[in-house]
Amino acid sequence: MTTNVHPSLAAARQARERFRAGACRPTAGLAPGMTQANLIALPRDWAWDFLLYAQRNPQACPVLEVSDPGDWRTPMAEDADLRTDLPRYRLWRNGALTGEINDARACWEEHPDLVPFLIGCSFTFENALFEAGIEVRHITDNTNVPMYRTTLPCRPAGRLQGDVVVSMRPLPASQVAKASTITARYPGVHGAPIHVGDPQALGIVDLDRPDFGDRVRLEPGEMPVFWACGVTPQAAVMASNVPFALTHAPGHMFITDVPDSRYHV
Amino acid sequence: MTTNVHPSLAAARQARERFRAGACRPTAGLAPGMTQANLIALPRDWAWDFLLYAQRNPQACPVLEVSDPGDWRTPMAEDADLRTDLPRYRLWRNGALTGEINDARACWEEHPDLVPFLIGCSFTFENALFEAGIEVRHITDNTNVPMYRTTLPCRPAGRLQGDVVVSMRPLPASQVAKASTITARYPGVHGAPIHVGDPQALGIVDLDRPDFGDRVRLEPGEMPVFWACGVTPQAAVMASNVPFALTHAPGHMFITDVPDSRYHV
Repeated sequence: MTTNVHPSLAAARQARERFRAGACRPTAGLAPGMTQANLIALPRDWAWDFLLYAQRNPQACPVLEVSDPGDWRTPMAEDADLRTDLPRYRLWRNGALTGEINDARACWEEHPDLVPFLIGCSFTFENALFEAGIEVRHITDNTNVPMYRTTLPCRPAGRLQGDVVVSMRPLPASQVAKASTITARYPGVHGAPIHVGDPQALGIVDLDRPDFGDRVRLEPGEMPVFWACGVTPQAAVMASNVPFALTHAPGHMFITDVPDSRYHV
Repeated sequence: MTTNVHPSLAAARQARERFRAGACRPTAGLAPGMTQANLIALPRDWAWDFLLYAQRNPQACPVLEVSDPGDWRTPMAEDADLRTDLPRYRLWRNGALTGEINDARACWEEHPDLVPFLIGCSFTFENALFEAGIEVRHITDNTNVPMYRTTLPCRPAGRLQGDVVVSMRPLPASQVAKASTITARYPGVHGAPIHVGDPQALGIVDLDRPDFGDRVRLEPGEMPVFWACGVTPQAAVMASNVPFALTHAPGHMFITDVPDSRYHV
């Protein structure tokens, strides 16, 4: 049987298959045009608090999809297995990172009622920036996007609280407005920047020392531009002493079969 | 003490005060420019299912705000009381409408863990249509927008299932594209139309007999244009035999202190 599959869709499936077989690498640049998502899975007892937390902080935690308790499948990729198809996972116990794993099947055995949430990722609008002639520095330099914990509080929900985590892209001052306009039309994947310029206003002490990901070049005449980031749920897990959580490792996303254009308004 | 309050904000507060004092009327045209919202309040036991249902059906059930269990206040209007500040409520038991009331305080006594959800309403984009020179017929005619149950299924969540409810506005064929483009940029309040033209494709038998609201004039050369509607949760309550629910009465919305512009992308 021959089937015509769009090359990006084929690339998404192939990447998931490789990760399932044990391969591990950051996902930036893989399957261009296909939506990549942050993962956080919590026991059913914490799911309401988290969904409410996400609803109250939609720029940082835009929920793309929630699977039923105990289900590791998702409509965002029919053949995918959320337990194995991400390149790298982080395991959290009582708010502390306890390990990184490549296969999370044991987590569903330990917590048969685990609820997986898929959260939008700013990788989705990076294609649109690139197509508009705006350089995305960490892609040019082939590094992971720098991410920072801030002192901006999220709105709490139930037992969950924490601060916003941001990603940063340096832009020439003349391109800040254009990048803002473009990304604003992707509200499901963090939308417009939440801050332009002075990192100290966000409580960021040193741009060269990101909390997650890699440092990035800032050229003369460029402004640091900050978007809310899907690592924010991990900050909430840490700040709220959540007994158990499974997440993606920063930069190691879930690659879906949904085109980025789905989230353009 | 004198304070400067925007006339629309003052009108929103005044309307809520009047409703609190017992007045009752549909809210279309009141406090222009201020967001109006659908209300559904459910006992805590059903809140997860509902929030998940809304997340899976965001065009029909765009959640603007969720209050904590038992709380009748909302950040969308600091001084408001959700138990009394809507002009008219509907009370549902075991999936059946059991009454309409003007004061819902007894509901919070009966269910101290009631969780209020505020859902976006297409009234928000009607101002934008009007400003673009597009006639909104039910406003011209001073009637309630016609709403119809369809045979389009929502995605189920937990114990909740049901079909999409739509609102309909007749438009000249030449304005359908413009109205689509304008409303698409309000994804938080139902966004773009879900259907243009043939009502039978949605399972609607007779446009002149809406299930909620009033019939509206359809002039020669006009197309019926359908948007997902915030009465959809009420259809889910009916279809899913929900033991207890409190909602607004169709067309009798909660008027907030949030400007419509908040939901423009």
